Amino acid sequence: MKPYDVLIIGGGPAGLAAAIYASRAGLSYALIEQGFPGGQVLNTAEVDNYPGFPEISGMDLGMKWMEHAQKLGMQQIMEEVTDLEVGEELKTVRTFGGEYVTKNILFCTGAAPRMLGVPGEERLRGKGVSYCATCDGAFFRNQKTAVIGGGDTAVSDALYLSALCQDVYLIHRRDQLRAADYLQKKVAEKNNIHILWNSQVREIQGEERVSAVLVDTEGQETRMDVNGVFVAGGIQPNSSLLKGKVDTDSAGYILTNEHMETSIRGVYAAGDVRKKFLRQIITAAADGAIAIESIVGTL
Amino acid sequence: MKPYDVLIIGGGPAGLAAAIYASRAGLSYALIEQGFPGGQVLNTAEVDNYPGFPEISGMDLGMKWMEHAQKLGMQQIMEEVTDLEVGEELKTVRTFGGEYVTKNILFCTGAAPRMLGVPGEERLRGKGVSYCATCDGAFFRNQKTAVIGGGDTAVSDALYLSALCQDVYLIHRRDQLRAADYLQKKVAEKNNIHILWNSQVREIQGEERVSAVLVDTEGQETRMDVNGVFVAGGIQPNSSLLKGKVDTDSAGYILTNEHMETSIRGVYAAGDVRKKFLRQIITAAADGAIAIESIVGTL
Repeated sequence: MKPYDVLIIGGGPAGLAAAIYASRAGLSYALIEQGFPGGQVLNTAEVDNYPGFPEISGMDLGMKWMEHAQKLGMQQIMEEVTDLEVGEELKTVRTFGGEYVTKNILFCTGAAPRMLGVPGEERLRGKGVSYCATCDGAFFRNQKTAVIGGGDTAVSDALYLSALCQDVYLIHRRDQLRAADYLQKKVAEKNNIHILWNSQVREIQGEERVSAVLVDTEGQETRMDVNGVFVAGGIQPNSSLLKGKVDTDSAGYILTNEHMETSIRGVYAAGDVRKKFLRQIITAAADGAIAIESIVGTL
Repeated sequence: MKPYDVLIIGGGPAGLAAAIYASRAGLSYALIEQGFPGGQVLNTAEVDNYPGFPEISGMDLGMKWMEHAQKLGMQQIMEEVTDLEVGEELKTVRTFGGEYVTKNILFCTGAAPRMLGVPGEERLRGKGVSYCATCDGAFFRNQKTAVIGGGDTAVSDALYLSALCQDVYLIHRRDQLRAADYLQKKVAEKNNIHILWNSQVREIQGEERVSAVLVDTEGQETRMDVNGVFVAGGIQPNSSLLKGKVDTDSAGYILTNEHMETSIRGVYAAGDVRKKFLRQIITAAADGAIAIESIVGTL
């Protein structure tokens, strides 16, 4: 069988945008995604930062993207990828169902937030529990929020939220922050950021939406009323399939140039899985489009 | 009056995405755009490459973006910028109507294609006359198209279209191409790209849509039936306001890093006006989001 021009692995915003661009460029391709396409967007109650769709549910937005891609002729292989072989000229993608040969691979497997692992977190996800301040902060204007963590992400999130929220509680299990000095200095200047040292969240509470967190500070439990909880323990890239095959940073994010080329010819990465400054729907989609146009230039 | 956190200059996709992100981040900002926001999109008959909106008119898409930004509280200053002063700490933006002081400027002024300047071009723009093969090529599947030019853009456009169209006529006024050697070699391999040397288009013809081009080859006129005409004389960045103030390339495109920072602290650029690999709605919007998040990190 003739090799594909490109196999797109992963059906989130990067992968679906890539499919739309690949269809329009007349490439032979398929999108490999074991589930319903849409990615992390599907777990998002409300999206308000993808221009043109104010206040849309993540599920509806994912549907619209998939319909767009399907209208243009996207073929989806609904299987799980188990192994990759990245030869010089041709690459082989193996699934439980079969084996596919392609000239190029575009890796759009995304990333997943590190869960806190406390009662209430899973149940209230998207109902006050969030893993992305830039994505969801605006929904908590003039409200009270808690940020959990002490690294750069947590402190940046607290700063971001301090411009929007009435009060921000930064809950950290140690007695000092790990975040960069200049971020810590900025926090000290904000009088609506309150740091709770040596504290761990034991439970996230609420009926329909988050209403409080239960905090353990050196053995003493406190119930704090908040409307939102931002879990800022970092995210993990879904890059294990390419482990040891392409260059990554120490956290496992795939390194690319601005053409989305990885360290191996014919292997591209787009979206949250690559090392980049801002992980958003719109930037993932832009990556997918760029990767396909880079591939078009090589065919 | 208190300086703005950021003034966004230009209301195309980059500027409107920036406005959406700035609103959501709680920044004090305004968007300066003398006309109706939307940018080049407004001149596009049909857009099919912005994920989620298959086959939408450019005007409708522009409206949806503007409504989204307005819903989030965007303030538009409907004036023409006449002059900029970029001081170390504060920047001043002057218009015919007034003077505005801001901590940061985000330049989203876009680019404009070089027109061919022949009869029929203006009238049939968006009705078969296009300035972007990646944007519009898919509308001419299995049809006949002409590409006008001989540089990298023209030859890349011809290659892009050759995967989609029945025949592609590359019309060039000289007896050799200016494009890079490897592009010329690729063209030679495609049997549906036909080069017309020493030829100039005199007129683009058609009633409702393009039906033909009138070509002058060393004094002899030929009428060629085509469905689409791609004018590939390059585009020009609208960067004159920043001329001599920030680093640009020789064509005038503003140089930025991946945070959209220019060579001057507090001056950012996003979208078609900056030097970048792929100029599309989705990549302009991503730039706008990234620029705002960069600015948020400095406040």
